[in-house]
Amino acid sequence: MTTPLRIAIAGLGTVGTGVVRLLAENKELIRTRAGRDIEITAICARDKNRDRGLDLGAYDWVDNPQALATRDDIDVVVELIGGSDEPALALTKTAMQNGKSLVTANKAMLAHHGAALAMMADEHTVMLGFEASVAGGIPAIKAIKDGLSANTIRSVYGILNGTCNYILTEMRRTGHDFVGILKQAQEKGYAEADPTFDIGGIDTAHKICLLAALCFGTHPDFDAISITGIEKINAEDIEFAEDFGYRIKLLGIATKDDHGALSVRVEPCLIDQSRPIAAVDDVYNAVLIQSDFAGRTLLTGRGAGQAPTASAVVADIIDIAKGIKLPVFGVAAKHLNTARNAAPEDIYARYYLRFTVQDKPGTIADISAILRDHNVSIKGLIQRSRDEDGGLVPVVMTTHRSRYGDISACATAIAALPAVSDGDPCVLRITDEV
Amino acid sequence: MTTPLRIAIAGLGTVGTGVVRLLAENKELIRTRAGRDIEITAICARDKNRDRGLDLGAYDWVDNPQALATRDDIDVVVELIGGSDEPALALTKTAMQNGKSLVTANKAMLAHHGAALAMMADEHTVMLGFEASVAGGIPAIKAIKDGLSANTIRSVYGILNGTCNYILTEMRRTGHDFVGILKQAQEKGYAEADPTFDIGGIDTAHKICLLAALCFGTHPDFDAISITGIEKINAEDIEFAEDFGYRIKLLGIATKDDHGALSVRVEPCLIDQSRPIAAVDDVYNAVLIQSDFAGRTLLTGRGAGQAPTASAVVADIIDIAKGIKLPVFGVAAKHLNTARNAAPEDIYARYYLRFTVQDKPGTIADISAILRDHNVSIKGLIQRSRDEDGGLVPVVMTTHRSRYGDISACATAIAALPAVSDGDPCVLRITDEV
Repeated sequence: MTTPLRIAIAGLGTVGTGVVRLLAENKELIRTRAGRDIEITAICARDKNRDRGLDLGAYDWVDNPQALATRDDIDVVVELIGGSDEPALALTKTAMQNGKSLVTANKAMLAHHGAALAMMADEHTVMLGFEASVAGGIPAIKAIKDGLSANTIRSVYGILNGTCNYILTEMRRTGHDFVGILKQAQEKGYAEADPTFDIGGIDTAHKICLLAALCFGTHPDFDAISITGIEKINAEDIEFAEDFGYRIKLLGIATKDDHGALSVRVEPCLIDQSRPIAAVDDVYNAVLIQSDFAGRTLLTGRGAGQAPTASAVVADIIDIAKGIKLPVFGVAAKHLNTARNAAPEDIYARYYLRFTVQDKPGTIADISAILRDHNVSIKGLIQRSRDEDGGLVPVVMTTHRSRYGDISACATAIAALPAVSDGDPCVLRITDEV
Repeated sequence: MTTPLRIAIAGLGTVGTGVVRLLAENKELIRTRAGRDIEITAICARDKNRDRGLDLGAYDWVDNPQALATRDDIDVVVELIGGSDEPALALTKTAMQNGKSLVTANKAMLAHHGAALAMMADEHTVMLGFEASVAGGIPAIKAIKDGLSANTIRSVYGILNGTCNYILTEMRRTGHDFVGILKQAQEKGYAEADPTFDIGGIDTAHKICLLAALCFGTHPDFDAISITGIEKINAEDIEFAEDFGYRIKLLGIATKDDHGALSVRVEPCLIDQSRPIAAVDDVYNAVLIQSDFAGRTLLTGRGAGQAPTASAVVADIIDIAKGIKLPVFGVAAKHLNTARNAAPEDIYARYYLRFTVQDKPGTIADISAILRDHNVSIKGLIQRSRDEDGGLVPVVMTTHRSRYGDISACATAIAALPAVSDGDPCVLRITDEV
């Protein structure tokens, strides 16, 4: 294969310009590794006149991305427009229908339409590469699809959102509260002006949705994911967690229980400080895969940003240049199963509970009675008294292994006690498995 | 492709029996992922009658491994005999010459004959897979060859020998000395009866040799590697390192300097305790790749043992079943370069030095003068006095960034001082880059 692979790039934001830059900077090396040249034929973005710090004059500029999908002089379309639906979705479909392979960083589109797109990729014998959509520069998708292909995977855990990990890390380091650190993260460019997708856990959910499909050979099923963000974590939670020997991380989690039921969720979790994944700080991401033969495999690296994401996009392009065409989610789309989902109430774990209570006699006795009545046994308890009697104080406890249904019932009953205030209690799982 | 892939396994030790077991246990899943069945046609080992805990009656037993290389009913030979030369080498060559792909866990053979074997694989258009030869269950080779294929790699660091990592971890935890922990490791089966290959750094050197070839596109060049084992690390070094904020790990290191010169070495290093790689303990392995676009990518997992190594062997077999045929070291063998090697004296780093000296006035002044005369500046110094005057005490120091040639000259001059005893001083590099 000595003819160049001809690509078109749709979307020239941070990642798109990164791909253009990478293909130029490492041109020789990529040619040697791919066995042929990779040439950009056409590019497309909303604003032709924006200064992207790159000379784009050599490439054919196209205003409508759809035009890329049908051109004869393009082998691969690189979709970096983003968004779960149009115009990215139509571009992806039309390109594949026209026999072109597709490379994308679009986790939302794949989380919502992955099953249909995988079917289409198989039908047209094209590759749909999405390494860049999960954990940026970490080759997590290739590790699961290829490196661990001999294994029955039991679980996958990920720190998949750099914004959340940065915020939680800074809260721990500074003792400041969520709102202040979020503002600072926005000023530094580590958080979007509208941070809802990140801090609310949606971005992590898109990513764990795809990892779950890969690990368990199931249709991506975004709607089945239970999602909790980090907005309710306060400085005291971080501090109490430290006192108990834990760190709080927002995890995407997908596990299969002994009966084959799948649980996919996003939630802030307490992780033992001595575990390697607890040391993954700042904007770094991590993916931990537990499998029957390889055991525990932990991958860490830069999960976002121009250069790491471009690295993943171009790795997929190089695969296509080499003639590699693998099923999207590791198995032929027709073999993907629909998962049977575990009931959230049936998840057994240890739990961290924090309530705000009036500092008066009998409150702890009332709380303890509720826990006892639901078969929840307390492992550790911290109550900090204020100077003035009757003020509001936090009560924090960790439990022994319990059923979530029981914990949830306790939390509701405790929140209804007259001495307990301040809205919802904070209930976090302690993740011993990572 | 619906015909089964027919494999032969040569060597039925720990890894070989693991491969047989894995192919049976995950048969359905492997068929789905590979798109076809993988069938064992023939097996071969020295002793047919040894109880391996497996029923091998279904497979054709062959006494001479060479016979596997020429049979028409075998597509892939899995070489698990081990050893850098015969019979593994002849089997590998003959199999490839007969158009069969080869999967191996044999790091020694590839470190010594990798360039010639890669050329042969290209010539006969077969795959030579060796994922299992480095870091067991961690898909490090695929990560470099495939996941990071768009990147110019700057360095690769690895904790690549579980025996050494276990010994150093236990020395730290227990405070016991090398010899005692080695004995314990042998009793637990974590160290061989003859542990020279492991503790002397040879095994790590084989592995870093292959990683260097992959990362830098060079011929594997085992003879250019400078190798230091862990035999000279004593309990005091571990303790002093902790006092300075470091942990000692045996690292395989391959770096390219700004002038393109390669340095490949194996040596115990001091690593800042806060770095994630410092937390990789016991028999776990780690591979840290630093590249221009992806940044720092750290992979950790089980580096040896039956199941993790079998996982890597079978991942390569699945690749072959899928029709993937990639160049052995990531680029066509004819494009592999011969590295220009950096002079060891020119490596700049911070250093840790330990001497045993007579506890009498003037010794530190003499040592300090030698360091000053060689432009080496001291960052930290610990001298512990014993009760009795004139006894032997350790003097330990860390330096600012210095040239190794200067450090080496200092060590020689200091060792020659009348007050300094106990043979060679201990000189370790402090690795700030991991």
